[in-house]
Amino acid sequence: MEDHVTPRRVVIIGGGFAGLFAARALRHAPAAVTVIDRRAHHLFQPLLYQCASGILSEGQIAQPLRGVLRRHHNVDCLLAEATDVDPQAKVVHAQRPGGEPLEVPYDDLIVAVGMRQSYFGHDEYAAHAPGMKTLDDALGIRRRLYQAFEMAETATDPEERRQWLTFALVGGGPTGVELAGQIREIAGHTLDREFRAIDSAQARVLLFEGSDAVLGAFGPHLADRAARTLRNLGVEMHLGTMVTGVDADGLTVKDRNGASTRFPARTVLWTAGVEAPPIAAALARATGASQDRAGRIAVEPDLTLAGHPDIRVTGDVMSLDRLPGLAEVAMQSGAYAGRAVRHSIEGRKRKPKPFKYVDLGSAAYICRGRAVVKVGRIHLSGRTGWLAWLLIHLAFLTGFRSRFGAVLSWAVVFASGSRRERAFTMPDPPAPPVPPAGPKPSAPSS
Amino acid sequence: MEDHVTPRRVVIIGGGFAGLFAARALRHAPAAVTVIDRRAHHLFQPLLYQCASGILSEGQIAQPLRGVLRRHHNVDCLLAEATDVDPQAKVVHAQRPGGEPLEVPYDDLIVAVGMRQSYFGHDEYAAHAPGMKTLDDALGIRRRLYQAFEMAETATDPEERRQWLTFALVGGGPTGVELAGQIREIAGHTLDREFRAIDSAQARVLLFEGSDAVLGAFGPHLADRAARTLRNLGVEMHLGTMVTGVDADGLTVKDRNGASTRFPARTVLWTAGVEAPPIAAALARATGASQDRAGRIAVEPDLTLAGHPDIRVTGDVMSLDRLPGLAEVAMQSGAYAGRAVRHSIEGRKRKPKPFKYVDLGSAAYICRGRAVVKVGRIHLSGRTGWLAWLLIHLAFLTGFRSRFGAVLSWAVVFASGSRRERAFTMPDPPAPPVPPAGPKPSAPSS
Repeated sequence: MEDHVTPRRVVIIGGGFAGLFAARALRHAPAAVTVIDRRAHHLFQPLLYQCASGILSEGQIAQPLRGVLRRHHNVDCLLAEATDVDPQAKVVHAQRPGGEPLEVPYDDLIVAVGMRQSYFGHDEYAAHAPGMKTLDDALGIRRRLYQAFEMAETATDPEERRQWLTFALVGGGPTGVELAGQIREIAGHTLDREFRAIDSAQARVLLFEGSDAVLGAFGPHLADRAARTLRNLGVEMHLGTMVTGVDADGLTVKDRNGASTRFPARTVLWTAGVEAPPIAAALARATGASQDRAGRIAVEPDLTLAGHPDIRVTGDVMSLDRLPGLAEVAMQSGAYAGRAVRHSIEGRKRKPKPFKYVDLGSAAYICRGRAVVKVGRIHLSGRTGWLAWLLIHLAFLTGFRSRFGAVLSWAVVFASGSRRERAFTMPDPPAPPVPPAGPKPSAPSS
Repeated sequence: MEDHVTPRRVVIIGGGFAGLFAARALRHAPAAVTVIDRRAHHLFQPLLYQCASGILSEGQIAQPLRGVLRRHHNVDCLLAEATDVDPQAKVVHAQRPGGEPLEVPYDDLIVAVGMRQSYFGHDEYAAHAPGMKTLDDALGIRRRLYQAFEMAETATDPEERRQWLTFALVGGGPTGVELAGQIREIAGHTLDREFRAIDSAQARVLLFEGSDAVLGAFGPHLADRAARTLRNLGVEMHLGTMVTGVDADGLTVKDRNGASTRFPARTVLWTAGVEAPPIAAALARATGASQDRAGRIAVEPDLTLAGHPDIRVTGDVMSLDRLPGLAEVAMQSGAYAGRAVRHSIEGRKRKPKPFKYVDLGSAAYICRGRAVVKVGRIHLSGRTGWLAWLLIHLAFLTGFRSRFGAVLSWAVVFASGSRRERAFTMPDPPAPPVPPAGPKPSAPSS
């Protein structure tokens, strides 16, 4: 007779790097694992900017979550948005698309909800300056980028044309730098000789950053190299500036001396900050956990919440030792939390060692053949950095069937500058007004 | 001293097959060609269903129009929607995205605007039964298809679950048949073993067709073969039915005897009919041309409008000898019109021969390894048909950089059933309601 033990119910909120690695660590555990995510796919977020700029397709950076976990027979995926946690009843409250409520009971909870774009209290900027966190964001930015050149081509007013050919990026972190490089490359190479009325290469790219350096997290040496590469590309950097206003026609910034400057630009993209999604505040309320200014949840050294050994927080939304919001931190903390739950299910008595992040380095792609990579004390830039970037991304794309496709797309864009995924969606505009009155010879018959 | 002659201004409305082939035929003509299109890309429409079903990416079926025409130095592309034609002033009225008007003067006009989905006077069906004519349509259908399985997985009510697992297709032409085959393959192969609560293979696919046969245009022999293949795939065909109502939960059809039947289904897709876009009616009003019931514009044997030798109508929106709305007809008529304009510019006096369509055959893909192909008297089906389909599409994708990528995607889906482009976009839902009240231990600090 078989021994039917009810398996431990492990609920993971979020199917990003942290959630995925937690689920994988539980593969052979006697647990019933449920991954709840608002989207049905796992997104390879570090390459999202390449989807936005037309190098990669959605399928090359996003895989169906249940496809990725297909062979994990103890894992179940739910397309729903977690809205609250009840730590007494041990239930996650969630909503299916459309709004119907779901209740998902758990024995162990792993929170891996990530962070979303923050406008530092100015959510009204979002309509004019989209962020880049989701596939929808990336496709929206793709439309804005390529449509801006189309609009410049048909503009009759020279000032309007200049505004369409000006792209402003707020935030000098990896995403802002990567987008700046992409836009200059699109303008100078991809669109070369395609337009008649405009010279796409004249497009201005403005990069605004509040601190004194772009890519400050890479240290002064690489930051300098990156700044030089960007300048050579034609990116205009405005360091030490704070955005004080964004509208459909441009943005206003204030420098360190308090002087305000207006920059007309029809395309403004926002990569400046992150904040925790609402579920983080709900969890903090329910458990008494504290949050940092951006809403990250403070965790114990073993990633549990104080007083709640059954709740672990991992990835970007976890606040621990000021660890940065990197894919690698998310993977390692997710895997740690998954293993910890497995050990607890297996009845290991020994207290787990505290989570320790092993810095495997970070990388930012600037343009064709140029990247900066920092691995411990090793600093690479230029072509060497780019080769390292390529190897790192090939290694991390392992397991993705699209690795081959990505390499092909990179080869094409590197060799010729042309991009395979430039087609942008364009929802139908509102019905056109009645055509202008004029001489109409005769009525048609049918 | 050079001889500066003002080149003839040729305006082409529409960048589909007809417009593209017209522009290409004018490549070496002393003409200034302007292609006006509402979208910035040329769409390989015959494969749109493969984008909707997750085999191909947008970039594999849609290329930027100005990229395709990059080397045609006399061609200019405008992203705008043509709204009216003034044949006296020889001006096309158009709107840029956003609504500002544009006026584009012409000496010769080629109209290649194609057809759009028709609901036969029931436009209210469109919200519940999207058509498939644009990239946005295809991505919307991709979301509906894959999300339906996700919704079925989380449904607690068995009746709701059955409705999510029922897919209704209205229209038994190539697009309807191709979609029916795709959905059965997704359900049976692609999603195999990915869901826990549902068996995706149980998904029902209903195909409604008003006439007595699916793929009637292929003749009784191939129509029979196609119907048999579809039945073997598990598609339920309802021939001789007329749709009398569509809502969010299903559709109602009437059979030949007038009996009404209700079919619950949360996904209804519409491929049943086409109609001319508003610009066709505007053109007919302005020129006195007659339109057929679907709004196609009647043309002379040389594709000009009666009394307007400077206006030519080509492609799907042209009404001539009951030619079908096939890509091949669009290509040939577009090329014919472009050549005719070139000959006229070159001053050839001889009246051109009437346009004659050379039937190069038609093809419909049913499922992996099964297609029907009709070339004159040659009828192919099954695996032979599929091989012919493959060769035809490889030939027609020539010139598309993505041919290699498409072949790769086909190889993957054929060998393993897995699809590389399953990721679907999902616009943010409205903000969730306030979480349910419950015991909240203490307030967070920050």
